[in-house]
Amino acid sequence: MVMRTLFSRSISSLIPRRPLSKQILANDPTSDILEKLCYFKKTSSGMFHLLPLGIRTTDKFTQIVHDRLRTNNDASYLSLSSISPKQLWQATNRWDNSELFKLKDSKKNDFCLVATCEEDITELMKTFITSYKDMPILAYQVGKKYRDELRPRSGLLRAREFIMMDAYSFAKNDLEASKMFQDVNKTFYEIFQELKIPVVRAWADSGDIGGDQSIEYHMPLMTGESTIFTCDNDKCNHVATDEKAVSYPKEEGSFTGDVDVKYGLSEDHSTLICYYFPKGRQLNWNLAKVSVDSDVDSKLREVSNEEIIEIFQNENEDMMFTKILRVMDTRINSRSNFPDFPLRSYLKNNFGQIDNVSIVNAVDDELCGQCGTGHLHSQKSIEVAHTFNLDTKYSKPLQLKFMNQKNNSDCLVKMGCYGIGITRVIASIAEFTRDSHGLRWPSSISPYYASIVTAPKKPSKGSEASSIDNSNYEEIVGMFKKDIKWANNIISDFNNTASMGTNISLSHSMGIPMTIIVGNKSWPKVEIEVRGKKWNTADRLSEWEHKYPKLKDKYDWKVIKANPMDAFQEKHIVSHQHVVDVANLLLLDL
Amino acid sequence: MVMRTLFSRSISSLIPRRPLSKQILANDPTSDILEKLCYFKKTSSGMFHLLPLGIRTTDKFTQIVHDRLRTNNDASYLSLSSISPKQLWQATNRWDNSELFKLKDSKKNDFCLVATCEEDITELMKTFITSYKDMPILAYQVGKKYRDELRPRSGLLRAREFIMMDAYSFAKNDLEASKMFQDVNKTFYEIFQELKIPVVRAWADSGDIGGDQSIEYHMPLMTGESTIFTCDNDKCNHVATDEKAVSYPKEEGSFTGDVDVKYGLSEDHSTLICYYFPKGRQLNWNLAKVSVDSDVDSKLREVSNEEIIEIFQNENEDMMFTKILRVMDTRINSRSNFPDFPLRSYLKNNFGQIDNVSIVNAVDDELCGQCGTGHLHSQKSIEVAHTFNLDTKYSKPLQLKFMNQKNNSDCLVKMGCYGIGITRVIASIAEFTRDSHGLRWPSSISPYYASIVTAPKKPSKGSEASSIDNSNYEEIVGMFKKDIKWANNIISDFNNTASMGTNISLSHSMGIPMTIIVGNKSWPKVEIEVRGKKWNTADRLSEWEHKYPKLKDKYDWKVIKANPMDAFQEKHIVSHQHVVDVANLLLLDL
Repeated sequence: MVMRTLFSRSISSLIPRRPLSKQILANDPTSDILEKLCYFKKTSSGMFHLLPLGIRTTDKFTQIVHDRLRTNNDASYLSLSSISPKQLWQATNRWDNSELFKLKDSKKNDFCLVATCEEDITELMKTFITSYKDMPILAYQVGKKYRDELRPRSGLLRAREFIMMDAYSFAKNDLEASKMFQDVNKTFYEIFQELKIPVVRAWADSGDIGGDQSIEYHMPLMTGESTIFTCDNDKCNHVATDEKAVSYPKEEGSFTGDVDVKYGLSEDHSTLICYYFPKGRQLNWNLAKVSVDSDVDSKLREVSNEEIIEIFQNENEDMMFTKILRVMDTRINSRSNFPDFPLRSYLKNNFGQIDNVSIVNAVDDELCGQCGTGHLHSQKSIEVAHTFNLDTKYSKPLQLKFMNQKNNSDCLVKMGCYGIGITRVIASIAEFTRDSHGLRWPSSISPYYASIVTAPKKPSKGSEASSIDNSNYEEIVGMFKKDIKWANNIISDFNNTASMGTNISLSHSMGIPMTIIVGNKSWPKVEIEVRGKKWNTADRLSEWEHKYPKLKDKYDWKVIKANPMDAFQEKHIVSHQHVVDVANLLLLDL
Repeated sequence: MVMRTLFSRSISSLIPRRPLSKQILANDPTSDILEKLCYFKKTSSGMFHLLPLGIRTTDKFTQIVHDRLRTNNDASYLSLSSISPKQLWQATNRWDNSELFKLKDSKKNDFCLVATCEEDITELMKTFITSYKDMPILAYQVGKKYRDELRPRSGLLRAREFIMMDAYSFAKNDLEASKMFQDVNKTFYEIFQELKIPVVRAWADSGDIGGDQSIEYHMPLMTGESTIFTCDNDKCNHVATDEKAVSYPKEEGSFTGDVDVKYGLSEDHSTLICYYFPKGRQLNWNLAKVSVDSDVDSKLREVSNEEIIEIFQNENEDMMFTKILRVMDTRINSRSNFPDFPLRSYLKNNFGQIDNVSIVNAVDDELCGQCGTGHLHSQKSIEVAHTFNLDTKYSKPLQLKFMNQKNNSDCLVKMGCYGIGITRVIASIAEFTRDSHGLRWPSSISPYYASIVTAPKKPSKGSEASSIDNSNYEEIVGMFKKDIKWANNIISDFNNTASMGTNISLSHSMGIPMTIIVGNKSWPKVEIEVRGKKWNTADRLSEWEHKYPKLKDKYDWKVIKANPMDAFQEKHIVSHQHVVDVANLLLLDL
């Protein structure tokens, strides 16, 4: 079997030599901590080198993604070019995007660095899809993507160069497309479950990528830049991003204050829309657009009072605002205090009105627009993945067609696209799990399951020289290296001139779930300090607690609960012959 | 253990449906064959998508490289940013290179896409290297590189976007640097040995990368663009590229014909060099430069007759050509017929002369410049890897310094760099092994070890309908899937409406080493057609031939040697219970 193994041996040259100060660990932003602990190194604004620790963590997460997509979704793995020709992006109307990195070759051809690959893969699939028999296809890749963010920030969280898994589905009809959309979303959910990190799914706006249905995956985090709303009705539990969340007032028609207005104008200038909503609330442009979907065909854009008057004056009279739609947020009523209409002359017959819609951003405690009974609660979060049901948004302009069962060769392929921000997930988990002693990785993506430390080979400066016997340490390292599960998941080559305490602190701050301490005094017993968080054990015993009563004598096993202020959560002291067994038990909850 | 597995399951949607025609297989360039067989897909000139078959092959080779570098060289694995800032490349004088893809971000900062990463990693190492104790370090990555070749050609062989493994060594002194250079070269040699493909090491010019010592790895190929010379003296066996090969005439001083001349001028215009060599031979500019290394300090450039006269007329008299060096190729002598010197007035005292050097391109059958006794023989080849002993070429301009044992903190790090063109190796092996029936991968990098084919599930068009029992086929597939070595190295999902013969041809043309044929007629026997080349078995029995006498009755095993014109080299017919055992034996030589 061909397998790609991760690499542990000489990582020592590119890991931190000393633990960070308490000051730094407690106060610095997570991105700085990750950089100081040698997970990555910033080069320019928003760009990074991934260092050995970072690449191990990234690779472990990527492996989880690979395995799930393969097992659940039968997905094909490929690697698309990073340099995409202008023509494709012009065809889909996405070339004029200031976030694309653009470049020319020596022959003056225009390209961009890929931000996503809908265009490229749609074009590629013309090679493989000609008949309905060729579908469904799900293809994916994991690789670098590029976005020229105006304000790169928070390290790997909002970078200009980042690692993304992007998958694309191709289906012959809506039913198949919808099933693929559901299936991939099921896999995404399982992927985040495997990480043991809470991630919620929120209905979202599809934005620039397009399409009808869109789900975002959010990690709730105080420091996050996004906001999601969750309904507290257990039968509903609807979650939506702030762009998508529909809310209703707890008491209808109770509002009697001033009304604010914003205007939307259709592309052809035929329709003017006046959105009326309570002063002090924010118009939700996404909901505002949806509220008039069935009444306005062409694209809408927001216009100001002054612009309306100007357009009115310049337009041919016949053309002007043949339709004026008044959209009333459900919170206001006829007793509210409306602003003046900007135009003096207009035809009353042209007016229409839409009532009882919610067009403002939700606020905490309002009623859920989905069930109408639960209350909405907001939380800050980081978006870590996004899925889109694209319909024919890309297959139409790029003409990806197939022949259906009835020999009609003019059918457009129904697509979906799915992305997981690999480096962003890593950074979010670091942010989510860190404490004042450093990082705390879940074992599923930790660069190593455990570190092994011992007294320094050479006495550290100032301490007295003593002849140090390393054979105990080597015996323990050997026991782990012999075990196929552990061989590549042990780090044992810290700075061997630093004190044992220093290396233990370093291991803890790096977020390694367990630190195995081989002291010559405690031998033949060995200590395991558990640094990693225990996941999902709030309402049950840890796995080791189940087995402990039976094994404690056999293993000569003692447990010391740590002070809550310690960097580790408990310490296990165990006969050295059984250290691998106990480590295996502990790992089950980490 | 975390392992990255390759993916077999749904590749079927992105493999070829039908074998290529004999015409195409026999005549098309290898890059077209690879593309038509769905290994990759060209997007723009010199740019590619890697498709599932291509990425499997690439990943297998990459895995071999990973494993060797880790086991032999304790190398640290990282992933550098693909976008490199202009400042670094200016510092090393490499920004003005028309082959760099350059781009600006929205803030008008200049960057290039990485072609190699000496600048970036030298800068990065300032974080890790401050003392002699921090070295040696060997770090490497595998990823996309970008070169805006003016004439991209031959598919993956000379591409603008390609996958490269690039490693960099950092040493505290020449001795350590030289040892690292040797150690990495030893690993490279082993990597190519593992591929079972003949690769020769040639001393090479270090070109734009720079440094003192440089070794290229060449795959001998008629269609290659490079030329290497090999000495036929068994005690010497010196190999060098045409740029570096030094040759001597078989009979010295025998030349009496016309002499040709080319001129070199030092950057400061102080020294004019006249290179005299036999008319009809090509001056080797690399050897020409080396011949005057100890006499000329500044850079040399080639100048024409006319340019010399022009410069002479424009220069201040004191400055003009204070030194004129005549370099005599060893082939010419005083009886040869020399051209006129371009200048009329000059000081005889300024003249110097260097004799007995070889400054022309070698030709076949001349004497080896290394041993002086063997004869040189040329062959066409493809360069697949290159190593450089860089000395301080990058550490000096970028100021990568360290403190040595004597507390001198002004010491420059000694570097080396090492590259393997991953996608180029794949394309070269395809070129090297293909025959008129298609590709023939060594099993080490073949996307699969074997394919399993059976009669179509649905009768093919025109043939009579019959009820087909797939249980035999499923039993065989199950046997391989159960075996950890084989589970992920079997492809069994060809087009199941095509005939068995079609799928066998397809498997052969894709270069899969073995095709396992499960026919209902031959059951309970199964056939294995061996498509792969046997490596290194010219002077010994195949592994299976050793075991055959003992096992043939037990396995009910018969062997049919194929006609040399067949797509496969032999066919093994064996009892179905033993098909995995026989496949394992056959694999040993493939």
